[in-house]
Order: sequence, then C-alpha cells, then structure tokens
Amino acid sequence: MQVRMKSKIKFIGFVAASIDGRIARGKKSGTNWTSREDWNFFQQALAKMDAVIVGRNTYEIAKTKLKRRNTIVLTSQSALKQNGSATFLNSVKHNLVKFLREKKHKKVAIVGGGKIYDYCLRHQMLDELFITIEPYVFTSGVSMFLGKEFKKYPFMLVSVKKLNKKGSLLLKY
Amino acid sequence: MQVRMKSKIKFIGFVAASIDGRIARGKKSGTNWTSREDWNFFQQALAKMDAVIVGRNTYEIAKTKLKRRNTIVLTSQSALKQNGSATFLNSVKHNLVKFLREKKHKKVAIVGGGKIYDYCLRHQMLDELFITIEPYVFTSGVSMFLGKEFKKYPFMLVSVKKLNKKGSLLLKY
Repeated sequence: MQVRMKSKIKFIGFVAASIDGRIARGKKSGTNWTSREDWNFFQQALAKMDAVIVGRNTYEIAKTKLKRRNTIVLTSQSALKQNGSATFLNSVKHNLVKFLREKKHKKVAIVGGGKIYDYCLRHQMLDELFITIEPYVFTSGVSMFLGKEFKKYPFMLVSVKKLNKKGSLLLKY
Repeated sequence: MQVRMKSKIKFIGFVAASIDGRIARGKKSGTNWTSREDWNFFQQALAKMDAVIVGRNTYEIAKTKLKRRNTIVLTSQSALKQNGSATFLNSVKHNLVKFLREKKHKKVAIVGGGKIYDYCLRHQMLDELFITIEPYVFTSGVSMFLGKEFKKYPFMLVSVKKLNKKGSLLLKY
C-alpha cells in the first residue's frame, strides 16, 4: 500500500523478482524462471482485474497470453491504435486515466516491465504492490523499477506469504 | 542458505535493501535510510563475527564504526597493508581464504557493497544471507549484487521476520 490519496481507479502492481530485485535477464526475456505457485497466484489475481497495463517489450513477450484481456500497451508511437483486445496508447499524447475511466475500468493491473512500474509509481498509479521474491540471486539483469532519479517512495507492508517449500515469498504492500 | 558444499569458514552476508533491491543512492552513499530495528539486528549479529569483509567504498563510509573489528578491505592495490584493525588485501595477488584461516577467523561477515557481495557469491563465500527489505522503492541507485553476467544462483529461504510496524522485513537464506 503506497502512502497517498485515493483515486477511483485502483492500480495494482504485480512483480516477480529475484532476491536481488531483478525481473529478467534482458529487456526481451520472459519470466519463465518464476515458480508455478507464483504463476497460479498471478493468474487468479488477473482474473479479477478489468484491464492490464504493460510496456511494449512485455507485450511482445506475453502477447498470446494477453489475447483475452483488456490490455493497454504504453508506447512511444503517437496514434491511439486498437488491435484485438489491445490498445496502444502514448501517455504523453493521450490521457491514460481518462481513457481508463471512459472504458469504466475500476481495477487495473500493472504488470511491467521496469519502465512501466516506474512510470506508474511516478504518476500515483500504484495503490497496491504484490512482489513475489523467488529464491535466486541473478547478480545482473533488468531491475524492478527503472527510474532515472533516486527517490524514496514509502510503502506499507500489508502481508507476507510463503508460496512453497523452497521459499518463494509473496509480499503485499 | 546457498545450495553448495560446506567450507570450514562460515561466510554470512548482511544486506539492507529497498523493495526494488537497491542498497544505496550512489557508490559513496551511506545506509542512513535503514530502520533502527535493522541497525540493532545488524550490530548484534556483527558482535558474534570474527571478521568483516568490505569493499573500499563501504570501508570509507563505515571506517569509524569498523575501528574495533577485524576488517578485511578488498582492494585493487597490490600490497598487503595493515592499518589498525583493518587489512587491505588484493584477492588476485593474495589468497583471501588462506589469510582468514591463518588468522583463525571462523565466522566472517560480508557487508558490502554490491561488488563485494557479487565477488563472494561467485567464489562460494556466501553460506548464509540476511536481507533486510525496508519498505521503500528507490527506482534508481546501486543494486544489491553488481555482477557482469546474468546467472541463476539458487538459495533456500530459512526464515522471515517482521522487524517493525511499518514492515521492515528480515529474510534469512
């Protein structure tokens, strides 16, 4: 739970990371290293969401899996574009929150990558944050939040759950 | 607990990090953002250690506090140098484990920064790992492990402890 004012739309971040806060090997790598238990949690959580926000790279990786979900792909291309259930939106040219309101989306999942998590955090669009810490250290790779500036965003820990025997850990903030 | 063979010397890593796996703003920044509860845990844990391994930058920051501890500062300078309780050692020129054995150090704390954690992990010198996750997101700064290559080092979660009300979390691997 981030310490901030309430908005009507609820933005909920989902992150799967290593112990050292990495979410992938590279920009175009998937998250096939996460536990089955995290995957199950993630799918059950997504089923309750009205829409999903992703970045371009994450979309390219997860395209097939997102086919039946209302997906907003944040992109640098200007034109608002629709492709099946996916809307490509440039948040500088178009008002993202207004778009979500018009579509009557109340619960919106933020599912990455690192630039998207950072964008949503900076724009007060991260009311809750679920982090699964898988029991690995990667020592390199893409960081969870890719910000340009060091800032101290306070969160409140809500709950901790051990997902399996090897110690995948689900944190709710 | 890292999944590996036992060594006679026990190496125990101590890390304080943000939710997104950052340990400091920059290379020369301190960790004054950590909770009192983590500080107390860390001091009590250090009291049971025979020696402490740090990198050059961490040493410069924590010098005064390390004055009474057997400290090994990993450095790129060739000559083995002693300064009070601190030994400056180049691990390419000198055998670190042999040095620790000669000094009869059985319990050795690894306290950072990111390059040192990575060095110890790569050299099977991280038998246990204590990570305190403070409830902040930094979006930028120094990562916990500063490796050059993406690798999947497996760990086993041993325990989880909530240190305070706001949710500083102590993980033991």
